[in-house]
Amino acid sequence: MKMSMNNLGIVKRNIVRADRAAVEKLARFGVATIHEAMGGVGLLKTYMRPIYSGARLCGTAVTVVLQPGDNWMLHVAAEQLKEGDVVVAACTSDNCDGFFGDLLATSYRARGAKGLVIDGGVRDVKDLTTMQFPVFSRAISAKGTVKATLGSVNIPIVCAGAPVNPGDVVIADDDGVVVVPAAIAQQAADAAEAREANEADKRKRLAAGELGLDMYKMREPLEKAGLKYID
Amino acid sequence: MKMSMNNLGIVKRNIVRADRAAVEKLARFGVATIHEAMGGVGLLKTYMRPIYSGARLCGTAVTVVLQPGDNWMLHVAAEQLKEGDVVVAACTSDNCDGFFGDLLATSYRARGAKGLVIDGGVRDVKDLTTMQFPVFSRAISAKGTVKATLGSVNIPIVCAGAPVNPGDVVIADDDGVVVVPAAIAQQAADAAEAREANEADKRKRLAAGELGLDMYKMREPLEKAGLKYID
Amino acid sequence: MKMSMNNLGIVKRNIVRADRAAVEKLARFGVATIHEAMGGVGLLKTYMRPIYSGARLCGTAVTVVLQPGDNWMLHVAAEQLKEGDVVVAACTSDNCDGFFGDLLATSYRARGAKGLVIDGGVRDVKDLTTMQFPVFSRAISAKGTVKATLGSVNIPIVCAGAPVNPGDVVIADDDGVVVVPAAIAQQAADAAEAREANEADKRKRLAAGELGLDMYKMREPLEKAGLKYID
Amino acid sequence: MKMSMNNLGIVKRNIVRADRAAVEKLARFGVATIHEAMGGVGLLKTYMRPIYSGARLCGTAVTVVLQPGDNWMLHVAAEQLKEGDVVVAACTSDNCDGFFGDLLATSYRARGAKGLVIDGGVRDVKDLTTMQFPVFSRAISAKGTVKATLGSVNIPIVCAGAPVNPGDVVIADDDGVVVVPAAIAQQAADAAEAREANEADKRKRLAAGELGLDMYKMREPLEKAGLKYID
Amino acid sequence: MKMSMNNLGIVKRNIVRADRAAVEKLARFGVATIHEAMGGVGLLKTYMRPIYSGARLCGTAVTVVLQPGDNWMLHVAAEQLKEGDVVVAACTSDNCDGFFGDLLATSYRARGAKGLVIDGGVRDVKDLTTMQFPVFSRAISAKGTVKATLGSVNIPIVCAGAPVNPGDVVIADDDGVVVVPAAIAQQAADAAEAREANEADKRKRLAAGELGLDMYKMREPLEKAGLKYID
Amino acid sequence: MKMSMNNLGIVKRNIVRADRAAVEKLARFGVATIHEAMGGVGLLKTYMRPIYSGARLCGTAVTVVLQPGDNWMLHVAAEQLKEGDVVVAACTSDNCDGFFGDLLATSYRARGAKGLVIDGGVRDVKDLTTMQFPVFSRAISAKGTVKATLGSVNIPIVCAGAPVNPGDVVIADDDGVVVVPAAIAQQAADAAEAREANEADKRKRLAAGELGLDMYKMREPLEKAGLKYID
Repeated sequence: MKMSMNNLGIVKRNIVRADRAAVEKLARFGVATIHEAMGGVGLLKTYMRPIYSGARLCGTAVTVVLQPGDNWMLHVAAEQLKEGDVVVAACTSDNCDGFFGDLLATSYRARGAKGLVIDGGVRDVKDLTTMQFPVFSRAISAKGTVKATLGSVNIPIVCAGAPVNPGDVVIADDDGVVVVPAAIAQQAADAAEAREANEADKRKRLAAGELGLDMYKMREPLEKAGLKYID
Repeated sequence: MKMSMNNLGIVKRNIVRADRAAVEKLARFGVATIHEAMGGVGLLKTYMRPIYSGARLCGTAVTVVLQPGDNWMLHVAAEQLKEGDVVVAACTSDNCDGFFGDLLATSYRARGAKGLVIDGGVRDVKDLTTMQFPVFSRAISAKGTVKATLGSVNIPIVCAGAPVNPGDVVIADDDGVVVVPAAIAQQAADAAEAREANEADKRKRLAAGELGLDMYKMREPLEKAGLKYID
Repeated sequence: MKMSMNNLGIVKRNIVRADRAAVEKLARFGVATIHEAMGGVGLLKTYMRPIYSGARLCGTAVTVVLQPGDNWMLHVAAEQLKEGDVVVAACTSDNCDGFFGDLLATSYRARGAKGLVIDGGVRDVKDLTTMQFPVFSRAISAKGTVKATLGSVNIPIVCAGAPVNPGDVVIADDDGVVVVPAAIAQQAADAAEAREANEADKRKRLAAGELGLDMYKMREPLEKAGLKYID
Repeated sequence: MKMSMNNLGIVKRNIVRADRAAVEKLARFGVATIHEAMGGVGLLKTYMRPIYSGARLCGTAVTVVLQPGDNWMLHVAAEQLKEGDVVVAACTSDNCDGFFGDLLATSYRARGAKGLVIDGGVRDVKDLTTMQFPVFSRAISAKGTVKATLGSVNIPIVCAGAPVNPGDVVIADDDGVVVVPAAIAQQAADAAEAREANEADKRKRLAAGELGLDMYKMREPLEKAGLKYID
Repeated sequence: MKMSMNNLGIVKRNIVRADRAAVEKLARFGVATIHEAMGGVGLLKTYMRPIYSGARLCGTAVTVVLQPGDNWMLHVAAEQLKEGDVVVAACTSDNCDGFFGDLLATSYRARGAKGLVIDGGVRDVKDLTTMQFPVFSRAISAKGTVKATLGSVNIPIVCAGAPVNPGDVVIADDDGVVVVPAAIAQQAADAAEAREANEADKRKRLAAGELGLDMYKMREPLEKAGLKYID
Repeated sequence: MKMSMNNLGIVKRNIVRADRAAVEKLARFGVATIHEAMGGVGLLKTYMRPIYSGARLCGTAVTVVLQPGDNWMLHVAAEQLKEGDVVVAACTSDNCDGFFGDLLATSYRARGAKGLVIDGGVRDVKDLTTMQFPVFSRAISAKGTVKATLGSVNIPIVCAGAPVNPGDVVIADDDGVVVVPAAIAQQAADAAEAREANEADKRKRLAAGELGLDMYKMREPLEKAGLKYID
């Protein structure tokens, strides 16, 4: 098949979701830990913030490409949702309109969705907070959108600077949003677990007053780099 | 009378406020609902945010034009306040100084004001939160201001991108700030009510798992627009 | 000694901290009051925000210069901390990486630190909130940093637009962050106290409905400036 | 007639344009001079910049409200253009797509337009420069737009923070964009002329080394304000 | 082979570059035309701007991942350059340091490179302009960088919001930067050619005064959408 | 003398300017070279840009603290200017008004000034370009300012993130603005000279096709850092 130039106007129905057990394991760790465990990749831009304090989500991505000021594809995406999914929506240009509100949240939750990550705006923040439906967005805006122009569902996207494929694991908390490719979900979960175990001991030693300079053996490299202590 | 070129240095004392009953009815609805009911106009820029979570206000606008770094006119405005008013302040250039704090809030409240919307900065956030005096602003800044240069009170202004006339209704909540012209306040309130009634049924159907695709009859227009489903 | 062109790669061990009693007195006042009492200087840019609502700190500055994406010097700074210190970190260029998290916070607290002010990003926000370790930062980011390039500790810095010398008093609350030079800490505390006493009376009069126009005797200067009242 | 809640979906055909002679006179002055002559009102936000160095325009406004990512109304506006008009386009939300390019410029020029002021993006900058078709915009973007949703033509708008009515005079140069209400165009032109005449003498005196302190008689007010000279 | 979690620290030497003839054909068209011909995908964010007026480039991508404040990988990339390549550099976090200057440009040119696209800062702008070495960047900064931390060369990246694979065609001009996947380079070039041919006729008709409303047959859909003309 | 809490309202008349010969020598080098030669300090934020292409200045700083929307102190500063000075102006809060235009430029030039660096806006850009009066600013704005509130002249300031003392050397070109403390002006000039000499040879070798990898002996440290080459 010839590669298409244009991947707008497409809904892919069958996607391969990351392994359920791996997703559940990843849900136990924070975004910073997972991002670090993966070697420092997969993070969305820091302008993506939770709409209420304490929001947190972990699930498999159903991806959406939106057009500015148009949320038609968020309705199309609802049909593709399975239990445990997170909708991850990008837009063809920077736009902060309120693409999503409490009606869509009600629908998404009824379809099993765990939340929304959207490089755009959302509204009905009070209702979404009452529902405890976690949303991470670029903005909050009361401005509604039209339903006139096609985007796509379940194609590879770039959301807030990070590549996301349908079925990838998306984890979000107070520290931001990270994407784990489906193929390495288990590996990333294991690495996060190892990392966290490692940190417990460090925390105890630091709490007891030990210096990171000593614990991480930084004194020699610092001296080598030329650090001078003066009085 | 010849139209003046310059409308700075003016305080208009008698303004026509929106009908009280209409204002009270508008107070029952959210910003997103009202904005939608009005056909998508009257919204302030999304950078206008509440200074504390849950802040909400609805009242008739007393408008103010400020000069950068100068809050003199906020003092002048106090005298023009009537029960149920909201001060809406613009600035002749972008400026985030702390034009407003707990002393002015105390004065405004004593004069019957419901809150403040300001395209600038405010300070004493902790005290304002304790007072539960709702403020929607562009920024928070501890920097005080001088009282040296005239602006105006109760002239037509543009605040954070939206035109506001003295007496208009201003409603603000977690989703942002919207302005309803006084002349259509009742009409907007009725439209908001109709819209909200309409949404209750939709919410129920979506919660039961019905798809927006079906409820809004989107399948045919989507197909017509060329949407392709692939597996 | 010839003045050095380059002050990177230096750790100054002995710094003169502001008088303890003055620091404790300053801790009783808000940032807006202190900033005003000092005549309107020493404020950091308004993009510096607390990572959790209600965060507040007051202490003596241990200053740090960071390199973008590199938190090595935050580890070096830990050793220089004394009871009551606040780490104030600038970066050689704008960078929002997560330079600081719960492990460093554990170490800093063990060393007696009162909090952190950083013109960069931080992470582990949930843990820092649980610890109630106050941080004022430019951003939140899960992205970690390397330990490869030298900056400095306890040299004069510019942090978010304000000059900070080691030993200066740093106060931060909901309204922002202000720096008081060590040499005038007592003087600033006294001025803040005087200012606050002065405000209590004003607050009472304004609450009783007196206008600022009268209380501050503004009517004459406003008229002189040309203010016109129209009906 | 009942005031409509919604002014989208409207094209007003007959508008009253500012007096031709006044427009021609205004064309002789710079934006800074006109803005000053009007008493400091009517300026668009400073993010509005010429797409090529030296661009300059002066004409009567045909106003347009666009929807994000949709330039349909720019085509509708073409039919309403008369010799000497300038299209002034706002958008219902911040959007930097390329709403306008060389084809529309060709059409606009054929209809007599003097240029474009748009609170959005434009493209084909090289061609527009070759044509010397002056455009002042918020951004440059190669991204095209759809033609799917109605806005309006020749209704009162807010463009980049300034209110613009159809028929107003719009002047733009290296210093920015200013709007003169049609009703005061002649008055503003006269005031600008007076101001400029006034400046020629000042320029000569300053060039000869006279200080503004003396020419503007600032020494006494500065001393009164408390300025201290130290050595 | 197990998929690696971490793709930093890698240089891929053999990459498949887009077909030379297709690249040469694409070089004849503007960014806006190519972007439109591809169906509206592949555009970098609009903050990517040429460092001098008239800069323009077209070539095959050698991709680079940089660390903030560190240009080590730009030196590593030099060795991988072949005649006709363009270096496309992303950074693991937003950073505007001057990663690139005239020395690297001299080296790149000697190796056959056509220019640089970098989501970061550059310096020596005067020299680069004299050399006519085209650079599209996010910023200009005199601040140099260290060589301490690994990134990668020739892995898939996201640069200023757009996915770029090694060997893809990158075209940049006054309107911005667009990426054409290597596999569809010829198809995109043909589509751009068809589009441009199509435009010549339209331009002629519009120049003769024909309205887009008629030429594009918009009157009926506008009426159907509800557009009202009033006088 | 007791240290004053407030340094506003002061004009210091006698300042120690950097050595003339050192200033002249520094004028021969670019900002990037000088910044590098000084070890990477003294650079202003990258938002400071020349108002016309090719602007360049080098001189001794007369510092100014402005209040937002108020340029009174720029008039006061004129009297303090000596041949070879550059006015460096900061503002007590972020403000982009047009503080400076062609009249002040005429006066400054008559007093011997070499240009202006201002963390604010300027206007009359066309005239300033014609005069070839170099200005580096944060913004361009036609909006004028008042003369109502005191700032200071010739006190230590922070301008666009960099500390500047009266008499320091300020150099600006296409790459930005750098400040050299007066006490190390000669040392910095010598270091810049050495650096530039060093670069000529490198440029020649790179132009001949030698790789930075070899010239800078990077292969071993890259390998040590773990860089992997794959095919």
